[in-house]
Amino acid sequence: MEKISIPCGFLWVLLLSLASFTAIAIDTRDAKLTKYISSCEVNPQSPEERYRACQQHCERTQLQHRPQCRQKCIDEYRKEQRKDDNPYAFEEQHFTTIKSQHGRLRILQKFLDRSKFLSGIDKYRFGFLEAEPYTFFVPAHYDADLLCIVLRGRGKVTLLRSKGSESLNLQKGDIYRIPAGTTVYLINIDKREKVEIAWLIQPISTPGEFKEFFGAGGENPKSFLKTFSPELLEAAFKVNRDRLQEWLGQREGFVVKASEEQIRALSDHAGGKGLWPSGESKRTINILRQRPIHSNKYGEIRDVKPDDLEPFQDLNVGVALANMTQGAMSTMFFNSKSTKICVVPNGEGYIQMACPHLSSSSSEESEQGHGDGGFIDQSNPGYVQVTTRLRPGIVFIAPPGHPLVMVASNNQNLEVLCFVINARNNERTPLAGGNNIWNQMEEVGLELAFNMPSEEVKSILKSQKKEWFMKGPRS
Amino acid sequence: MEKISIPCGFLWVLLLSLASFTAIAIDTRDAKLTKYISSCEVNPQSPEERYRACQQHCERTQLQHRPQCRQKCIDEYRKEQRKDDNPYAFEEQHFTTIKSQHGRLRILQKFLDRSKFLSGIDKYRFGFLEAEPYTFFVPAHYDADLLCIVLRGRGKVTLLRSKGSESLNLQKGDIYRIPAGTTVYLINIDKREKVEIAWLIQPISTPGEFKEFFGAGGENPKSFLKTFSPELLEAAFKVNRDRLQEWLGQREGFVVKASEEQIRALSDHAGGKGLWPSGESKRTINILRQRPIHSNKYGEIRDVKPDDLEPFQDLNVGVALANMTQGAMSTMFFNSKSTKICVVPNGEGYIQMACPHLSSSSSEESEQGHGDGGFIDQSNPGYVQVTTRLRPGIVFIAPPGHPLVMVASNNQNLEVLCFVINARNNERTPLAGGNNIWNQMEEVGLELAFNMPSEEVKSILKSQKKEWFMKGPRS
Amino acid sequence: MEKISIPCGFLWVLLLSLASFTAIAIDTRDAKLTKYISSCEVNPQSPEERYRACQQHCERTQLQHRPQCRQKCIDEYRKEQRKDDNPYAFEEQHFTTIKSQHGRLRILQKFLDRSKFLSGIDKYRFGFLEAEPYTFFVPAHYDADLLCIVLRGRGKVTLLRSKGSESLNLQKGDIYRIPAGTTVYLINIDKREKVEIAWLIQPISTPGEFKEFFGAGGENPKSFLKTFSPELLEAAFKVNRDRLQEWLGQREGFVVKASEEQIRALSDHAGGKGLWPSGESKRTINILRQRPIHSNKYGEIRDVKPDDLEPFQDLNVGVALANMTQGAMSTMFFNSKSTKICVVPNGEGYIQMACPHLSSSSSEESEQGHGDGGFIDQSNPGYVQVTTRLRPGIVFIAPPGHPLVMVASNNQNLEVLCFVINARNNERTPLAGGNNIWNQMEEVGLELAFNMPSEEVKSILKSQKKEWFMKGPRS
Repeated sequence: MEKISIPCGFLWVLLLSLASFTAIAIDTRDAKLTKYISSCEVNPQSPEERYRACQQHCERTQLQHRPQCRQKCIDEYRKEQRKDDNPYAFEEQHFTTIKSQHGRLRILQKFLDRSKFLSGIDKYRFGFLEAEPYTFFVPAHYDADLLCIVLRGRGKVTLLRSKGSESLNLQKGDIYRIPAGTTVYLINIDKREKVEIAWLIQPISTPGEFKEFFGAGGENPKSFLKTFSPELLEAAFKVNRDRLQEWLGQREGFVVKASEEQIRALSDHAGGKGLWPSGESKRTINILRQRPIHSNKYGEIRDVKPDDLEPFQDLNVGVALANMTQGAMSTMFFNSKSTKICVVPNGEGYIQMACPHLSSSSSEESEQGHGDGGFIDQSNPGYVQVTTRLRPGIVFIAPPGHPLVMVASNNQNLEVLCFVINARNNERTPLAGGNNIWNQMEEVGLELAFNMPSEEVKSILKSQKKEWFMKGPRS
Repeated sequence: MEKISIPCGFLWVLLLSLASFTAIAIDTRDAKLTKYISSCEVNPQSPEERYRACQQHCERTQLQHRPQCRQKCIDEYRKEQRKDDNPYAFEEQHFTTIKSQHGRLRILQKFLDRSKFLSGIDKYRFGFLEAEPYTFFVPAHYDADLLCIVLRGRGKVTLLRSKGSESLNLQKGDIYRIPAGTTVYLINIDKREKVEIAWLIQPISTPGEFKEFFGAGGENPKSFLKTFSPELLEAAFKVNRDRLQEWLGQREGFVVKASEEQIRALSDHAGGKGLWPSGESKRTINILRQRPIHSNKYGEIRDVKPDDLEPFQDLNVGVALANMTQGAMSTMFFNSKSTKICVVPNGEGYIQMACPHLSSSSSEESEQGHGDGGFIDQSNPGYVQVTTRLRPGIVFIAPPGHPLVMVASNNQNLEVLCFVINARNNERTPLAGGNNIWNQMEEVGLELAFNMPSEEVKSILKSQKKEWFMKGPRS
Repeated sequence: MEKISIPCGFLWVLLLSLASFTAIAIDTRDAKLTKYISSCEVNPQSPEERYRACQQHCERTQLQHRPQCRQKCIDEYRKEQRKDDNPYAFEEQHFTTIKSQHGRLRILQKFLDRSKFLSGIDKYRFGFLEAEPYTFFVPAHYDADLLCIVLRGRGKVTLLRSKGSESLNLQKGDIYRIPAGTTVYLINIDKREKVEIAWLIQPISTPGEFKEFFGAGGENPKSFLKTFSPELLEAAFKVNRDRLQEWLGQREGFVVKASEEQIRALSDHAGGKGLWPSGESKRTINILRQRPIHSNKYGEIRDVKPDDLEPFQDLNVGVALANMTQGAMSTMFFNSKSTKICVVPNGEGYIQMACPHLSSSSSEESEQGHGDGGFIDQSNPGYVQVTTRLRPGIVFIAPPGHPLVMVASNNQNLEVLCFVINARNNERTPLAGGNNIWNQMEEVGLELAFNMPSEEVKSILKSQKKEWFMKGPRS
């Protein structure tokens, strides 16, 4: 394999270097490159590696050609991503990382940049916040609503609004909302464990685009205050520019170390009058404290519904947590309405899903979104099997209507935590197990549907007695 | 004409064959082809014929070039469609057909694929279900909400949810909803007449994209169950793979013949506990049983408002049915808010409509959606006359604000059935007839508006006494 | 400068003329043009001038090449616009003008045509209506909802619906709504002053696209009635075509002069039964009559909230009016949720804003919307300073979360009037002045946030005592 990949990578970069001069050359590259890439499908280089090689090359081209060159790299990368046969799973390389010395923000790429089949959730973004023990995440506001779940660690978050402030003590499983435009800061009050928080992000200004607004003075990131002209800052704060310069130049990074004393002082602090405009967050709710809605020795599932917590109501978003014991699996089921964005706080296993949209997109046509346009006779629907290995760090999407099974590994329990988009009135519909929907059909219906004596069909459908969670496959 | 068309078609295919090798050639084709096509506008070949010729040609090109070639055919087709001077009417060739031996699904192309002026309804799809006498449409669910109207025939539909099931007896004019993720099956209980049902489809996963999920075992379509690995199926159903294979391999097609006994058994069956989550379908309503809101000897119109039937409420969709007697026509009117998607269950005639958006899109610029971008001085608005022949099988769109007249032929009554998108608070505004809005204006207003003595204007506006429906034109 | 610009303009047109023949040439033009333009960034020609030169050139090319040529001009213009470092301000050249002899409509380009960062408000359009003293704006309806504010002058508007009509007397500061599909006409009842009205337009048919439907007979614009076939008009109005021709051919222009008598007759007229469907406009509200929510000697601000006026409720749009006395400025603040579309009825000054989205779009990648796609490590956020001179005629956008300061000139008061999109629960968050949010932080928080003794931080934050409005910078 190495043998193949090296010449390929080499050839490609060569092509690129030949290709940065005239538009004609660029167009040739188009075709040659596409051709080249398909002829190299076997090569071990990942699309990401190819992308990096491409970008590095661009840095060596003439300044005026760089933008075109860079754009080309991106287009190629996206073209390959589109070929991607599992657009429902995301790994490390699909995140943008904003680093600080003692913590980081990891923001998932736009869903639509990954696949047109995720356009239904493209108004959302997804991300993780991580802060080391005994640290302070400096105040910032966002042009987005944040729905947050604590995945690990203990912390305290403070929200500042013009009408008042509020502090929330956080532990694993806590769910809370940060309304758009709220200035918020966080401390990790634990001496040893880092705090990790998952964010469902709903931008309010530009769909799919949002930014961090760091106000408190400092560098890396710069405070937005420094963007204003000195004379405006002087007039606004009634302080001369030298003092302001000093004031805004001290801090380094957006997650800073805090001393045990500082942590104690901040965590003891009562925290806020808690005046809120109606329809916005007042409290937190902890999903681990919910009673399981389904439970047996193979697993259990917990739900937080949009109406269980005020801040969810206008978003119509819920949260679900499934635990499967090692060697067990969920039943085969689908969600009637919801799209789920899921993470794996702990454990290992895999999910298998039947995906009809992908099958029809195998052809260029529908990959361009023209699938069933015009009078083209569409072959009857087919379903593609999509299997995703589950482990901490993976993010996967379960679209509505798509039948799926979640399987825990044989040596570890599996924990799956999901944001449930469009949660209101969603129903999990079991396709196997004691409560599978087929059992509601009349005998004649079963006969016609399966073209088999109904007794035979029924004996198959009634064989598995367990509901929701059951013994997994041997292997 | 033939004389012209043959060399053109020939030339074109020739060009294509020359053009499948290098990117440069492909780009040349771009221009040459466009040029060619415009120079051949006179030729009798329909865009569809040209499209087929193009696709056939691609099959003969080298494998690696086929995707590009196919894409090119589609682009050319769409380009021609865009030139299309009536984007508000759809015929046979604009449907995708999913065939089974005893029935079929016909799904209309995406509205946006037809014209940017339909982007307002692009989150919807439209389609027809047809099943022959004494047949069974096998269970399936959809990642879309379906709003259904029975156009002809008698049937019985059963809806399965995890919380229960429900059966509805269907006859012409019945309106009902199938909530997303509901498993549904249908029987045609009539010995002679086929059942035909119109669907307004609202995808919930990917806007404008939806799929059929056929669960019950079989081929053509394959059951989605077959997508899962054997070991998972075994674990889920607790049945060995040979029996499962057999179980899932019997049925052929998604609309199967049923015996008289089977039909009787199914139609007699009581049908379901009818447990529903709030906000979803409980009942059906029949538009033929509504009292006409306007009626005279020339025609009548019936309405079902979003609040008349629970399942409509959250969709803000209504239904309207207009009947015009032969030789009659509707008044000239427009809808204040609604976009109507209409079919013609019976009869013949035509609709004439004044379309301002098309006039401004005559230039390339606004066809690209740049119409009034920038500082380009827009000529004052103009209106294009769009006339569509009405007959069963036609689907047409009436956008809000667009003045129109519907005319029945002289030898048949005309029936027009419409899904009313954004129906709440819509008003039909009559521009002619006894109740035309001009009659509300003060005399001086009429004087200034028409620059004519108000008496003269009033005598014109009062000449036609009939309201809503009136005698049509002679011809 | 002139020296540079002339050869550039010349070169460019030359290139274009060479470039209109084969696809290859056209592609070359692509690159050469782009290159040319970047090499000419210094030249004084405005993008608009370049655009006009380009369009004029196209008129001289062969007919068959014109569409491509024209499209190219537009693409180049848009490409330059995208480079535009302040997409939040609009001037004369960004409007489309529809002229009549005694008045005009000025419609702002689509927001998305200006910048992807305005996609959040792209479903809206914006415009101005102007009518000279003693004139009549002829009846028309629109496939859009209009939210209107009178900027100057006095008038009377009459709204016609099938269910009734209503007249509203208008003066400066009046806010009212014209529901989609309402036929409306207006008189300027003042002998000297023209009437000017700002429109927030929400198209209901095609997002971002709307049209004027002029019904009353006449030329320039033609009445849409003239679009229909003579036989249909005869049947609809029961009047022979000669009389109809005459009826529909009299008026010239859509804003016509009216005599003092006509004006008096119209303004005296009682006006309408005022029957309205629920959820639509019943009244007007005047923002000048609202009590200021904040006020001191440096300025004051008035609000109309979505729930203050029935027609606002379903749109969730409000209106805000800020007045700053000469030499004063607003505090530094941001809006938590709203996007504001603002005009300057009177006065001069400037606005300074911190814009993080622009900073990340400096690279081609994110200009294409791929900014944080994939695994590209995003540099920590930066903020671009955007300063816009304010004067009558300017339209500017204030996105949510973006910190800004408005400054009045030293010799004139500044008036800023804004439509507030997504107004419900919006909070203005002050970053400076007596009530700045930092003052809510605990001492240790301030210490860590600014990495400075909290006493020092507090003394800076408490130095400026004024709230909301304060003394501006010297210069």
